[in-house]
Amino acid sequence: GTLGGLGLALGLLQRQAALAAAPEDEEEELRQRFMAPPVSGLRELRRRRRELRSRMELLIMETQAEMCRALADLDPGASFAVDSWERKEGGGGISCVLQDGEVFEKAGVNVSVVSGFLSEEAARQMRSRGKSLKAKDGKLPFCAMGVSSVIHPKNPHVPTMHFNYRYFEIEEADGTKQWWFGGGTDLTPTYLNEEDAVHFHKTLKEACDKHDLKLYPKYKKWCDDYFYIKHRGERRGIGGIFFDDVDSPSKEEVFQFVKSCAKAVVPCYIPIVKKHCHDSFTPEEKLWQQLRRGRYVEFNLVYDRGTKFGLLTPGSRIESILMSLPLTARWEYMHNPPESSKEAEILEVLRNPKDWVH
Amino acid sequence: GTLGGLGLALGLLQRQAALAAAPEDEEEELRQRFMAPPVSGLRELRRRRRELRSRMELLIMETQAEMCRALADLDPGASFAVDSWERKEGGGGISCVLQDGEVFEKAGVNVSVVSGFLSEEAARQMRSRGKSLKAKDGKLPFCAMGVSSVIHPKNPHVPTMHFNYRYFEIEEADGTKQWWFGGGTDLTPTYLNEEDAVHFHKTLKEACDKHDLKLYPKYKKWCDDYFYIKHRGERRGIGGIFFDDVDSPSKEEVFQFVKSCAKAVVPCYIPIVKKHCHDSFTPEEKLWQQLRRGRYVEFNLVYDRGTKFGLLTPGSRIESILMSLPLTARWEYMHNPPESSKEAEILEVLRNPKDWVH
Repeated sequence: GTLGGLGLALGLLQRQAALAAAPEDEEEELRQRFMAPPVSGLRELRRRRRELRSRMELLIMETQAEMCRALADLDPGASFAVDSWERKEGGGGISCVLQDGEVFEKAGVNVSVVSGFLSEEAARQMRSRGKSLKAKDGKLPFCAMGVSSVIHPKNPHVPTMHFNYRYFEIEEADGTKQWWFGGGTDLTPTYLNEEDAVHFHKTLKEACDKHDLKLYPKYKKWCDDYFYIKHRGERRGIGGIFFDDVDSPSKEEVFQFVKSCAKAVVPCYIPIVKKHCHDSFTPEEKLWQQLRRGRYVEFNLVYDRGTKFGLLTPGSRIESILMSLPLTARWEYMHNPPESSKEAEILEVLRNPKDWVH
Repeated sequence: GTLGGLGLALGLLQRQAALAAAPEDEEEELRQRFMAPPVSGLRELRRRRRELRSRMELLIMETQAEMCRALADLDPGASFAVDSWERKEGGGGISCVLQDGEVFEKAGVNVSVVSGFLSEEAARQMRSRGKSLKAKDGKLPFCAMGVSSVIHPKNPHVPTMHFNYRYFEIEEADGTKQWWFGGGTDLTPTYLNEEDAVHFHKTLKEACDKHDLKLYPKYKKWCDDYFYIKHRGERRGIGGIFFDDVDSPSKEEVFQFVKSCAKAVVPCYIPIVKKHCHDSFTPEEKLWQQLRRGRYVEFNLVYDRGTKFGLLTPGSRIESILMSLPLTARWEYMHNPPESSKEAEILEVLRNPKDWVH
């Protein structure tokens, strides 16, 4: 499509060649399972299939495809622009974006698998606990991969959803490998629907509870704390789960937990979209949605660690980072919804987060 | 108006009492000269009329009134919401905002005059040169005042304009007073009009040249360097002048220079608005304007020192700081205008700043 053409125009290398070179059955498998050939190549992933890196790359590719298919089913008129891109410094990614559809204003699902070398300073900044790492000749070989997605629907009764699951590996001077996972799934409604809030949080809690009953309460609170727009005294949305820099109890156990979370992304959200995407709405409700989109932009550009880190990293793909911004947003001076309005109801919850599941 | 009411609802103190208490002739003078009674009070300003602080406060109040009147004349159907607010920690301000008019989408002109105590760290951050100051008991008495304005017109053929002129005083432990000025005026067109660009820069150059022929070239470059959206490789607009932390040759001389700049604000911009506010435009031109508004938001939230400082300062008035954001903005994934289009023409100038006056 046009967007693919633009990708080329921007100097991004399409991996058509890799795809064409694959035997017919592999090509068929790729088409069925993924949105595009994986960054590391299917053969390489198969050869190293026991390594966590490979299993994580397959998981993020599958999560991308599951989400894109679920979204495309709900918005049959629209189609995903799929851009495979390479990073000069090592690795690459696949960005899938549906824009200006019937149901979705902007829906992006991005996979990136990048590797290379980090400075000690950059490595420390990547870990939320700021743990420092010993480099050999000032350089730390690293590998970072993740799937991230932001879905902005058109209808103000359908909430915005965001998720991100990521894995990092860094090799220290003495050869020891540091690794950790991060991620989360959270919901940003324009209007509060308690039933939806409970469904969303319950689905996440079930995914967490399979692994450890302590996880949901801990990561629910972390989510409320992280998505805080300090200058407004409001959270971005009604939360979900969020965790970062997690490296215990074991690589396998954290991976299994992350897998459960990734598998919960579609059942968390898609039923809510189906339920409300044909709800009628007023121009006033659309306007409130646009003002809330403005707050979404404020959080992402002022506070979000991932966005800030991305914007400051040389060689990062700006279009994939800023994919999270809504198609449209609005800022009115001194807008304050009247007391006891539906607009005030959601603000109350954003100011004082609630427990949705007990 | 409604906005005044909202101001009260937010707990902002209107200075109606001060106004009512003034003798009739003073009240008349206030009405004619200013948008609201000055923060420091007219009598106090008269009593201390030889002090630079008072002269600067009168200048920023006059600049606010001149700009608001010029804008109101061009948009007679709309009216300015005028909010006087007080800062718990000391001082206050006057915010004038015209929203959703015929000509202007959002036009804000804000005066603030704040005082109190700064930590050594906060004081260092306020100066662009990061000069450190010696505090008595860890506290530095300070006074900061300024006028700042962002004008976002509706018509994509009328550029957005921003200006800001400010003065700081900090008292060190030994009683010596550090002072400095900062400011600038810059233009952000959606489409390039060379004649307008030349008029704008020429008017600024004339204001500078009255004081020192070196100022315009120096501050023109500073402006191009400051308003740089690093992650896009673009400037926010076609520049103007910008300076910060200026404390030479003398307080009086810098004040006279700042006064010339402030007096140039209306002649810089208003003729451009008059010339284009009735130009016809297409939906595609409006869309490009909205995308450029998105870039404006990116600069202000990610890079602008004033906005960042404001958002992080306890007790600052968020609505007055974020007044600079446009009413509406748009982000499209991978939007790239075709070569040789009018959209590509302005991008070229934003990527490679030009000299508009020789």
